[in-house]
Amino acid sequence: MITSMVNKKVKQVVLWQTRARERRKDGVFLAEGLKMFEEAPESWIREVYVSEGFLKKETEGASSPAAGEETGTGKRKLRNKLERVGYETVREEVFAKMSDTLTPQGILTVLGQPQYQLEELLKEENPLFLVVENLQDPGNLGTIMRTGEGAGVTGVIMSSDTVDLFNPKTIRGTMGSVYRVPFLYTEDLGAVIGRLHEAGVTTYAAHLQGKNYYDGYSYRRPTAFLIGNEGNGLREETARLARHYLKIPMEGGLESLNAAMAAGLLMYEAHRQRHLEKEGS
Amino acid sequence: MITSMVNKKVKQVVLWQTRARERRKDGVFLAEGLKMFEEAPESWIREVYVSEGFLKKETEGASSPAAGEETGTGKRKLRNKLERVGYETVREEVFAKMSDTLTPQGILTVLGQPQYQLEELLKEENPLFLVVENLQDPGNLGTIMRTGEGAGVTGVIMSSDTVDLFNPKTIRGTMGSVYRVPFLYTEDLGAVIGRLHEAGVTTYAAHLQGKNYYDGYSYRRPTAFLIGNEGNGLREETARLARHYLKIPMEGGLESLNAAMAAGLLMYEAHRQRHLEKEGS
Repeated sequence: MITSMVNKKVKQVVLWQTRARERRKDGVFLAEGLKMFEEAPESWIREVYVSEGFLKKETEGASSPAAGEETGTGKRKLRNKLERVGYETVREEVFAKMSDTLTPQGILTVLGQPQYQLEELLKEENPLFLVVENLQDPGNLGTIMRTGEGAGVTGVIMSSDTVDLFNPKTIRGTMGSVYRVPFLYTEDLGAVIGRLHEAGVTTYAAHLQGKNYYDGYSYRRPTAFLIGNEGNGLREETARLARHYLKIPMEGGLESLNAAMAAGLLMYEAHRQRHLEKEGS
Repeated sequence: MITSMVNKKVKQVVLWQTRARERRKDGVFLAEGLKMFEEAPESWIREVYVSEGFLKKETEGASSPAAGEETGTGKRKLRNKLERVGYETVREEVFAKMSDTLTPQGILTVLGQPQYQLEELLKEENPLFLVVENLQDPGNLGTIMRTGEGAGVTGVIMSSDTVDLFNPKTIRGTMGSVYRVPFLYTEDLGAVIGRLHEAGVTTYAAHLQGKNYYDGYSYRRPTAFLIGNEGNGLREETARLARHYLKIPMEGGLESLNAAMAAGLLMYEAHRQRHLEKEGS
């Protein structure tokens, strides 16, 4: 059991929590909480830390007849996964130091950063991409990943100046989607957009100068939506690359929607056209 | 000019910033920033505080030929509005204390809380309501107001245990929609839903047990969407009151969408049906 605040592993986890550069150097990210551990692909897991209290509460009594059947099964599954991947127990106060949250759940998973290739994603049938430029709010990026999973996107492509997806706040905001939605960062968004066009993907920029509303296009064929920065939208040179500009109608005196909301509306409009309309609704 | 940290008005503003009860008692709320001042209805404004630096930067030179025409006009408009409603200048360090933000813009508006009546809202033609139960995240409520304005809702109705709309973070998140979207809190959500039914409004609960997808209904007639708490959804006794349950499809392993996102998808689906489809898109 780890009992010292100055334990080498504890200090390393704190660095990973607070510094994007440290995470990048080691190719890892952290995910806190029970659900994030339960949903984590086992092959991604490198280390698991649990607090004493968590271990007692969540795994003991797994086979006792006093535990309800469902609780018992949940505990057994958790204990089995912990044993398969290996874990270290940490004293409560030390765990609090390792945690990024005010009320730590008591389990912290260290995972390897996955690597996705654009060419692999392009092989999927009828892909649907979200392309994000210079998004700055960690909460927005988490919401985009989460909503993107719901809408069935093939992948989320981000300019390298977009906020770090592996930021602990963003990881929490993905609600596990980070495990299931492919994503990649690119230094050259223009080149990626060019490659999408070559591969037969039609690109649509959400743009205040759009002439047509977002539901005026068909997204049943390979599609990519381009979404820009919260305050400034897409850079002009990026927007210019898009095949079409579209706009989301706005009533009242509103000038823009939240970037994650705009992305969600577009992704779900594509989903609606691809899945729901054909059922004759 | 206010130069003292212990000035009575400064202390009052700090109380309003931090305590919902103080805001409620005095029937006020605060809005920071230039845009929030510019968009504020003049009849709502009670007090305005500007920092010395702000006043210099934003209003001086309004009529100088050196200022670009657009900048000059903006400055003149700002100066005129400030003079019409009245304002007090505050020393920079004192303003920082009054402000809720880390990098204050230098203008803070105190406004009276508006009072809307359900009966008035029901008189609007073909109303579209969002009914919110026990939402807890200030950011989500701000996003809901903002997206609601974009989608053209008639009003947002909240259970009294929903987070305070007048929370400074929520006010910022509304991006000015708080001035334009009617809203009300109710102690008795069940009674309000009953009144909506009486008035011919059809209610739809976003619910995991919904059998039909959200785009399977027509929202062209008077409509209300019911949205629940971030973690737990609607209370069963509230959901049971709704005429229909609907669900938003989710791909992948996702269990739920963010509450504001779900609300946004529903409100914009209603908007799409009411405005866009009839244009034959």
